[in-house]
Amino acid sequence: METPGQDASYEIVVGAGALQNLPGFLRERYPDHRIAAIGDGEALRRHGARLRGVLPEETPVLEVPPGEESKSRARKERLEDALFARRLGRDTVVVGFGGGVVTDLAGFVAATYLRGVPFVACPTTLLAAVDASVGGKTGINTPHGKNLIGAIRQPAAVFADTRFLETLPEPEFLSGVAEALKMAATSDPDLFGEIERGIPTLRAREAAALTRLIAAAVRIKAAVVSADEQESGLREVLNFGHTIGHGLENATGYVLAHGAAVAVGMIAESRMALRAGFLKPAAEDRLHSLIGSVGLPVRAPDGVERGRVLTALRSDKKARGGRPRFVMLEDIGRVRDRDRQGGTAYSYPLPAEVVDAGLRAIGL
Amino acid sequence: METPGQDASYEIVVGAGALQNLPGFLRERYPDHRIAAIGDGEALRRHGARLRGVLPEETPVLEVPPGEESKSRARKERLEDALFARRLGRDTVVVGFGGGVVTDLAGFVAATYLRGVPFVACPTTLLAAVDASVGGKTGINTPHGKNLIGAIRQPAAVFADTRFLETLPEPEFLSGVAEALKMAATSDPDLFGEIERGIPTLRAREAAALTRLIAAAVRIKAAVVSADEQESGLREVLNFGHTIGHGLENATGYVLAHGAAVAVGMIAESRMALRAGFLKPAAEDRLHSLIGSVGLPVRAPDGVERGRVLTALRSDKKARGGRPRFVMLEDIGRVRDRDRQGGTAYSYPLPAEVVDAGLRAIGL
Repeated sequence: METPGQDASYEIVVGAGALQNLPGFLRERYPDHRIAAIGDGEALRRHGARLRGVLPEETPVLEVPPGEESKSRARKERLEDALFARRLGRDTVVVGFGGGVVTDLAGFVAATYLRGVPFVACPTTLLAAVDASVGGKTGINTPHGKNLIGAIRQPAAVFADTRFLETLPEPEFLSGVAEALKMAATSDPDLFGEIERGIPTLRAREAAALTRLIAAAVRIKAAVVSADEQESGLREVLNFGHTIGHGLENATGYVLAHGAAVAVGMIAESRMALRAGFLKPAAEDRLHSLIGSVGLPVRAPDGVERGRVLTALRSDKKARGGRPRFVMLEDIGRVRDRDRQGGTAYSYPLPAEVVDAGLRAIGL
Repeated sequence: METPGQDASYEIVVGAGALQNLPGFLRERYPDHRIAAIGDGEALRRHGARLRGVLPEETPVLEVPPGEESKSRARKERLEDALFARRLGRDTVVVGFGGGVVTDLAGFVAATYLRGVPFVACPTTLLAAVDASVGGKTGINTPHGKNLIGAIRQPAAVFADTRFLETLPEPEFLSGVAEALKMAATSDPDLFGEIERGIPTLRAREAAALTRLIAAAVRIKAAVVSADEQESGLREVLNFGHTIGHGLENATGYVLAHGAAVAVGMIAESRMALRAGFLKPAAEDRLHSLIGSVGLPVRAPDGVERGRVLTALRSDKKARGGRPRFVMLEDIGRVRDRDRQGGTAYSYPLPAEVVDAGLRAIGL
């Protein structure tokens, strides 16, 4: 599949065994380059043999400890110094192997190494496959917050091998499902219907079902991103479920899994769309039902304080003057847009009583 | 002057008082943005009042110690943290005020701050005005070498105010002259002739002469860079004089000023072009004569060891298999090109006896 990006289109290969296409891609596109791999420790423990099996024998495989803490300046420096110590020059391709942490970190290392070398993403989680490896966002965290330092730079290619998804822990798997549902709910009624009809195959993680889901989600995200490289306008639709979702993550001290938070966020935000008069009850029911059927939660976890969620909403980075903004679903597969100065906007500030109704719908 | 770049064209304002155009540019292009300035300590000591005079009163002006050591990861982090501490968001424009160190460093800070915010360069040296602020190269050094981490990203605008050049120490001034001569010698016979006719006005640093020189050099560099964003092909012509120049810098432990090294390098490399049969003696004479007339050296400094220069040449980053490559002048304002796989090449490996003749021409 060819995907348009800021710099150039790039290749995305999805499926059981997709990783086997990596050597051919590298040979054809970068025949004289050397390779350096950066891999998540856990992904390497489980699937490292498969990665090494497709890389030249002398390829260094730099290991990154699992977890968000690895998206740090110190880790980036250490990786860079390891590349310099091996005298790797501009004719180097960096291959990232892992979840979103590794694709963000290794992508950013590649973006600034000798002012930029090619990057190939090999996502090993569903979330990274449908989300992190498309759109070109790379970066690290600082003590001031997440993803504060980074670059927007498209990968040279993405190889999403569904074999790696078979061993994913359920919450991680569902995080990816939640993002894919979000893309279907906002942008693709056919995909939404296909997911509805194939729930058992999805939950069984059948390769064919995962391949179709990833391919469709990636196509949607790539289309959204290429229409709007600078995170304004159309890209806002990717925030559906995320305004409330981030509020829930914040209010639970980031204990709640991202996918669960987004799922509950979509429930709340679709209720807001209903109350604001944009969405019909039948469409809200379909979304509510599908979220529950795939195994995602539809209510905030016990003990979450409504006040903490409201406080988090006011400081959301998309808030304007303390008023959060929400993407409004208009039907399954369609969001509401409006004109604004110099373009189109896809998110709305809402009256307090509408936000209130959304929070009540998830038990807050 | 509008200059084509990778992302978009950008504005370059050159002249006595060019900085006065900064507020209007910011108001028009970024009406709702906040500003953060990053300035070289020495430039701020001399000209800080002029900078502060054109910035909103509340603008933070972060000071960077003069010198190459400031192009470090630690300095970049400290600047980023200072911006975060002031809660500056994506609606921030970073203004860099100083020589190449500051434009490289502040440009790189802007390139990765929140995944990229606009950058405006205000060069205060002739070298930065003609060279560092055009082409979008930003970056920092690491213990492994110079400019190893960075990004290629065009500034939103460049304001090159010639008033700041009046107080530049002579070696720094001549470094800029050497780069401008290089661009004229390789790419613009008319500019070369104009410099020949205006030597006294240039040496007196008259505003009109400096303005024309900077504007012409910037136009050449921008054309070269926009024809070749990825530092292959045409961009090689910018290396004229630099292969030998870097060898001399290396052999003198970087005591020799960059401009002096490039000037002597141009003498050596034009002699090589003569010996290789590409350049006529009359053209070599003109170049030799102009370099001497503007106050730049034409011979290697006393005590430089020929063997150290040869060793440095073999490890030059543009060397292939230990053989350095040189840009070959064909006439004043024109370099020799040749076909190569997938494009055009502008630099050549040369027989040892030709390199030898070049080194003898500068007294080695």
